[in-house]
Amino acid sequence: MADNGANKMWGGRFTTAPAEVMRKINPSIGFDYRLYAQDIAASKVHAAMLARQGIIGAEDNARIQDGLDQVRREIEEGRLEFSIDLEDIHMNVEARLRELIGEPAGRLHTARSRNDQAVTDVRLWMRDAIDALDGAIREMQRALIERASEHRATIMPGFTHMQVAQPVTFGHHLMAYVEMFGRDRERLAGARERTNVSPLGAAALAGTAFPIDRHYTAKELGFSRPTENSMDSVGSRDHIVELLFCCAMHAVHLSRINEEITLWCSDGFRFIALSDAFTTGSSIMPQKRNPDAAELVRGKTGRVVGSLNALLMTVKGLPMTFMKDMQEDKEPLFDALETVQLCIAATTGMVRDMTVRPEPMRRFLERGFPTATDLADWLVREAGVPFRDAHHITARIVAKAEERGCTLGELDLDTMRAVDGRVTDSVFAVLAPEHSVQSRRSYGGTSPDVVGEAIERATRRWL
Amino acid sequence: MADNGANKMWGGRFTTAPAEVMRKINPSIGFDYRLYAQDIAASKVHAAMLARQGIIGAEDNARIQDGLDQVRREIEEGRLEFSIDLEDIHMNVEARLRELIGEPAGRLHTARSRNDQAVTDVRLWMRDAIDALDGAIREMQRALIERASEHRATIMPGFTHMQVAQPVTFGHHLMAYVEMFGRDRERLAGARERTNVSPLGAAALAGTAFPIDRHYTAKELGFSRPTENSMDSVGSRDHIVELLFCCAMHAVHLSRINEEITLWCSDGFRFIALSDAFTTGSSIMPQKRNPDAAELVRGKTGRVVGSLNALLMTVKGLPMTFMKDMQEDKEPLFDALETVQLCIAATTGMVRDMTVRPEPMRRFLERGFPTATDLADWLVREAGVPFRDAHHITARIVAKAEERGCTLGELDLDTMRAVDGRVTDSVFAVLAPEHSVQSRRSYGGTSPDVVGEAIERATRRWL
Amino acid sequence: MADNGANKMWGGRFTTAPAEVMRKINPSIGFDYRLYAQDIAASKVHAAMLARQGIIGAEDNARIQDGLDQVRREIEEGRLEFSIDLEDIHMNVEARLRELIGEPAGRLHTARSRNDQAVTDVRLWMRDAIDALDGAIREMQRALIERASEHRATIMPGFTHMQVAQPVTFGHHLMAYVEMFGRDRERLAGARERTNVSPLGAAALAGTAFPIDRHYTAKELGFSRPTENSMDSVGSRDHIVELLFCCAMHAVHLSRINEEITLWCSDGFRFIALSDAFTTGSSIMPQKRNPDAAELVRGKTGRVVGSLNALLMTVKGLPMTFMKDMQEDKEPLFDALETVQLCIAATTGMVRDMTVRPEPMRRFLERGFPTATDLADWLVREAGVPFRDAHHITARIVAKAEERGCTLGELDLDTMRAVDGRVTDSVFAVLAPEHSVQSRRSYGGTSPDVVGEAIERATRRWL
Amino acid sequence: MADNGANKMWGGRFTTAPAEVMRKINPSIGFDYRLYAQDIAASKVHAAMLARQGIIGAEDNARIQDGLDQVRREIEEGRLEFSIDLEDIHMNVEARLRELIGEPAGRLHTARSRNDQAVTDVRLWMRDAIDALDGAIREMQRALIERASEHRATIMPGFTHMQVAQPVTFGHHLMAYVEMFGRDRERLAGARERTNVSPLGAAALAGTAFPIDRHYTAKELGFSRPTENSMDSVGSRDHIVELLFCCAMHAVHLSRINEEITLWCSDGFRFIALSDAFTTGSSIMPQKRNPDAAELVRGKTGRVVGSLNALLMTVKGLPMTFMKDMQEDKEPLFDALETVQLCIAATTGMVRDMTVRPEPMRRFLERGFPTATDLADWLVREAGVPFRDAHHITARIVAKAEERGCTLGELDLDTMRAVDGRVTDSVFAVLAPEHSVQSRRSYGGTSPDVVGEAIERATRRWL
Repeated sequence: MADNGANKMWGGRFTTAPAEVMRKINPSIGFDYRLYAQDIAASKVHAAMLARQGIIGAEDNARIQDGLDQVRREIEEGRLEFSIDLEDIHMNVEARLRELIGEPAGRLHTARSRNDQAVTDVRLWMRDAIDALDGAIREMQRALIERASEHRATIMPGFTHMQVAQPVTFGHHLMAYVEMFGRDRERLAGARERTNVSPLGAAALAGTAFPIDRHYTAKELGFSRPTENSMDSVGSRDHIVELLFCCAMHAVHLSRINEEITLWCSDGFRFIALSDAFTTGSSIMPQKRNPDAAELVRGKTGRVVGSLNALLMTVKGLPMTFMKDMQEDKEPLFDALETVQLCIAATTGMVRDMTVRPEPMRRFLERGFPTATDLADWLVREAGVPFRDAHHITARIVAKAEERGCTLGELDLDTMRAVDGRVTDSVFAVLAPEHSVQSRRSYGGTSPDVVGEAIERATRRWL
Repeated sequence: MADNGANKMWGGRFTTAPAEVMRKINPSIGFDYRLYAQDIAASKVHAAMLARQGIIGAEDNARIQDGLDQVRREIEEGRLEFSIDLEDIHMNVEARLRELIGEPAGRLHTARSRNDQAVTDVRLWMRDAIDALDGAIREMQRALIERASEHRATIMPGFTHMQVAQPVTFGHHLMAYVEMFGRDRERLAGARERTNVSPLGAAALAGTAFPIDRHYTAKELGFSRPTENSMDSVGSRDHIVELLFCCAMHAVHLSRINEEITLWCSDGFRFIALSDAFTTGSSIMPQKRNPDAAELVRGKTGRVVGSLNALLMTVKGLPMTFMKDMQEDKEPLFDALETVQLCIAATTGMVRDMTVRPEPMRRFLERGFPTATDLADWLVREAGVPFRDAHHITARIVAKAEERGCTLGELDLDTMRAVDGRVTDSVFAVLAPEHSVQSRRSYGGTSPDVVGEAIERATRRWL
Repeated sequence: MADNGANKMWGGRFTTAPAEVMRKINPSIGFDYRLYAQDIAASKVHAAMLARQGIIGAEDNARIQDGLDQVRREIEEGRLEFSIDLEDIHMNVEARLRELIGEPAGRLHTARSRNDQAVTDVRLWMRDAIDALDGAIREMQRALIERASEHRATIMPGFTHMQVAQPVTFGHHLMAYVEMFGRDRERLAGARERTNVSPLGAAALAGTAFPIDRHYTAKELGFSRPTENSMDSVGSRDHIVELLFCCAMHAVHLSRINEEITLWCSDGFRFIALSDAFTTGSSIMPQKRNPDAAELVRGKTGRVVGSLNALLMTVKGLPMTFMKDMQEDKEPLFDALETVQLCIAATTGMVRDMTVRPEPMRRFLERGFPTATDLADWLVREAGVPFRDAHHITARIVAKAEERGCTLGELDLDTMRAVDGRVTDSVFAVLAPEHSVQSRRSYGGTSPDVVGEAIERATRRWL
Repeated sequence: MADNGANKMWGGRFTTAPAEVMRKINPSIGFDYRLYAQDIAASKVHAAMLARQGIIGAEDNARIQDGLDQVRREIEEGRLEFSIDLEDIHMNVEARLRELIGEPAGRLHTARSRNDQAVTDVRLWMRDAIDALDGAIREMQRALIERASEHRATIMPGFTHMQVAQPVTFGHHLMAYVEMFGRDRERLAGARERTNVSPLGAAALAGTAFPIDRHYTAKELGFSRPTENSMDSVGSRDHIVELLFCCAMHAVHLSRINEEITLWCSDGFRFIALSDAFTTGSSIMPQKRNPDAAELVRGKTGRVVGSLNALLMTVKGLPMTFMKDMQEDKEPLFDALETVQLCIAATTGMVRDMTVRPEPMRRFLERGFPTATDLADWLVREAGVPFRDAHHITARIVAKAEERGCTLGELDLDTMRAVDGRVTDSVFAVLAPEHSVQSRRSYGGTSPDVVGEAIERATRRWL
């Protein structure tokens, strides 16, 4: 703090201290401390570049490098107390550096501004976060693929409208999520490309007159290239919004599988059981085993989508270039990444934990006439009936079965023939769920063999 | 913790400890500790009612009352360390109570469930939060009314489309926000009514067979009445969503006034100046005085709307009654209230702090022909010209002034009469911004006298 | 159109025609034609007031009144073709009026602006829409109350976490929605109060110098009072956002009941059946009876919440007063009201249509130990066991029943006594779902008698 | 319609007609008619494949091909009236085909379901829409690059916090948007990849037992490959949500440039003027030239983000596979694409139309000390002062200039030297905005030469 109470980094011309509420609303150190490693890494590369270009002396650079290493150690060892008066991680690091090495610290900020410094730090943080997220989704895909492999022939009812439609295999069902999560990873890869460019050197907004080398700093920090326009560099946030969208879309997908886990655990279905490790009890109803984790993952979707909305709204309509509104980019970013990582860990755990119960799955197939389509297809294939007519014939046969309270396979041939004389004995072969599942051999279909091939392709592609 | 590692309150039947990720995703103590005072107050009333109804003994009640007072003191003095294994504030309080008083603690939860307990606590918290928010908005209205009173005759340009339209007074402009904020308070009052009902006694979801007295507990806790349906009591969250909407709508209004503060501080307008107390400088551009607080308030709107979205999405489509998804109601609630309170404090501070600069306001009135409407109205009133025709005549006169680069008042009479012969000398009286403002005496209009009356009414209604 | 192609109402000074894209993006007649009746009604009252105040002549007023009646008839008979070049309903009506009555039409817009005219029309439209919505919700409540009355004693499983928790009655369950929808109506009533005020006379933004009588026009149009501040009158949209929130909140509630209808129709539950009138079939799976309407209502929630978001975002951060951005208020408003009305009609239809199937409901109660709480409560009540201990004892007894695959009522007394010796023969009376439901007589509880009282209160309050 | 009033395609088993409200809520033909060309194209390829695989006869195929061509002609010539009772475009086309060619029409739906048919059609539509959107953004980039090229040396104030910060060039400022829009196009390219895969052959959800060739149909329809999992194929909507996000992000970027256009047109800035072609007037204030199009584009952002929210919410938490909720995917998709296209057209028009006014831009540079950074940098470079110290010295010099009401360049040397003796005469060279802009030659900086290079790179990359 300068004597006037203003931040000593920028407060030179100020005569009065900030209002008390400003000291609450303005500082970001309460959340941007997470960027300390990125901030120090970027400062080290920046100083090295300044020395390399002759903008600062080699000696000053050496002291800056050592000093920054020291600051990092102090932070990592919990020995540096951050100051709210210094507002953010950047000022906290630089102020400590000045305490440690004196005047050369004042040369570090040459040809740089907090604007380009802050966005560089965030991009470095995001790159790591994206890689970690990608890895976590991959492990979840691995768990799904393993369980799918185990259950590639386990027959369950496939639903549309929550009504039993056709038999599928549990493995096939799980592999649908492997595909969804694969697309989520593809989207992350796109977000990574747009994130991994270096704004360092854009300075406040206009670039700088110092003879800096932006390609060098970009390369040293692992960025693919420097950004193309200094105003865009400090004034854009779409890379963050895009990552929040990737998180939101993935959260929606996580919500869907956890909706199914909740349903499958419910008394209406009982398709799976979760162990005590993933359920909780009730304080008043001792028989309950609640799939809390699945419900929480589903519930947290709102929060991640809320973060996406928050930043879309904040950025909408801002003129160029940096506006302080943009400081609101970090908390939703940090929260969304942390939330999604937690949700993935919980979901992966449940996928590995769940006990699959084929009997209840089976029981559904005895009720909903799930092989009606197979009957219609038989009429098309074996009796040459046009599909639409076959559909109507099948509907009438199903009505008979429903009247009698039996399955299609339990209907007698005469009853079927009374509806349409072209039905023959050979129809019964297609009415068993096993046959139905085995027969669906089209690419991407539910036949266990075809699912097996899909598992092989997915393993090569995603694991 | 029970021996098996499960929560000892509900884990009776469990044989395995929760998964590690469950210990991260499941507990709410990290945020619901804020409810400790409400939880204890409600438990005390519940125990007193149980004793009054003869459900527990007077002695047990006495020990519970003392024990709960003790727990509260320990929390307030920072002597109670909360346990994540005990999941939430309710379990933490009860577990500590049991340590302090033993067996009677086990009788407290009679005829109650965590479901009704938790929603009771939240409603009590919300009631206080609503009252505090209402008070904060009132103080902001007070600041606006005071500044409006001071500037009821300060002439400024009124804009539509960010184009100068007609002269208004700065006081009148500020009073528009008093109206908006008044409606925000009305909405809060509605939310308070729907919040201030007692779900206590709904138990898990079905009510209870114990002969409890819900009217008594409702009254003692200051609720207006007990809720009408036990399933709705534990399974609904619309009172929270409604409060989040009130916060979001108010945040949008705060965003609007702070958009104006940002514009008014900008080099394009300079209508006001904020002191050092509410501005910050730049690390690289020493001349800057950035209205950071105004920008941050505007930016935080996204976050509050994001919280509204989060909970709308989380609750959407949940079947009855309680689902764990609903645990996600608290963090957006706490964050939104805290954020809005901070934004109000900052805005109130800026309203009080800002120096109003009449000269730049005045300069805009010399450019944009803001009394063109007055000219058109003069033609209607004095020359009996139909309004639409007067509009066209005025447009042609404005074109003349624009050609010559002068104001309407600087045009000579002959030029005006060349456009329409009905114009006379008396027209000049209406072309001065002062006259324009003075003349707009319709109810709710910008005339200083009328603004004065509005200030009186607003003072009576809102302060 | 003026000769230059610009709107002849305002285009006096313009020399060039609008760009082609402007003719697509700018006009609102494509959606605001819905306001014709409101626009004409408000114009008639405005003209009458102008005459009453001596601002226009009685003769002019008479011709305006007749002309406007004529325009309305032409619109209602489909004889008036709206022009995109005239942009909106206001200009279309006035232009037609001028064709019909000539010069006096040009006097109608005296002391008025499109700004106050447009917001007046929308408020009038909203008031009617709110009343219609309130009526529709009331009819839905009526359907629910009737079905609840019929099923006040029909026992079904009550769920938390989608796990069977305790028996409730179907009537009690339906009454939970009556409460939710009641709060939705209360919120609508609040929105109506804030909507039903008259901005007419605010003119463009500053009020007017004409001696108008805003109280008269407010009263004649059925408004409760004129608005207090002219800038707020034309520059605020929170009354529309609030109505969108009311719609969104109600849509979320509709989504919840339709989620349950979907679940109840599903093969996992089969608690109800919808007739052919409310289901559709499959083009390939003839056995399907899909509850499409319930799914569509659920799906449309996104759209209504999307409209709320749209307007919150659009208004956020707009400076005063009117900005053209605000023209985007109407389409979400119209769409949300229409969507919600459709969703209510569908839901009311399904509530009336559904066949309730007590047997499947019953079967769930034989599995999930739903009277475990009753057992615990018995231990508290009859054996004086503290609740928490009773909970643990019950948990152990439940474990025994689960091992044996029987219900609690089917366990023998010895097995129970082996867990805790205090259990006696009289416990069996509380283990039947009927008893459980009958016993929950606390206010708002699920006992049929108590539900009956709730139905009476709800009938008085809501129908 | 079948005799019972149900859709004759699936209503075989139904005995009652749908409820009246079902006929309003259920059909999608009111919006999915837009897919007619895609539906017919996909059906033709499907039929050809069926014939190729021997599933239907060559003769049947020939009649189907001709019949479908005929249906398309009828639609395009406006001769086919769509029926609401036939629900959607798929049924309308097939029903008309049956009228035209009779029985073979009934064979078209073999090995296909409405589920895979509908998602195939939408993907084909989206691919075209993405290509059209990409082309429109490219043309907008072209307009920006042309104007940037024209103004690469036009000096304007660069802002942060809406405060003048440093001089930049107008060309450099426009190029920032070229970068943003370029990223929007990259995101679209990613969305296109994930859209352009063929779900055809997934059938209802499980694949089919007919020996279809999904690779053939994929290739013939221009898809890159068939999808990998039949359940995912019919049950996922993330490709649509992703495109809505691309639209929302782009709308936010459009909102930003239109915010600037609105500001630049306002009386506070007057940096540009829009012609009559892109402005409107006021009905009461004849002097106004309102940038309506810019405001409308900004306002429509809410709507596009609302559509994104709508679909995220609708899809969230849906179990597999198809649920009717998903029918709500089309209207937000169609509306968002149409809205964004309109916004791009308006923005491109304004970019081409706007007259740039260098003088008002220039005037801002005389007020805000925009070359303070240049002075600080001079102290670092020429006098070897550490940056942080240079910053403080500059701040004190700025304070002197502010006291005297002069620019930095107008201060006398003695005054500067009184602050710091190291200042010399050569400092004045860096205080002119021209010098400042010329000197910022770092990669991506605002120097006209560097902007010229950026324009060349952007032209190669984006046009």
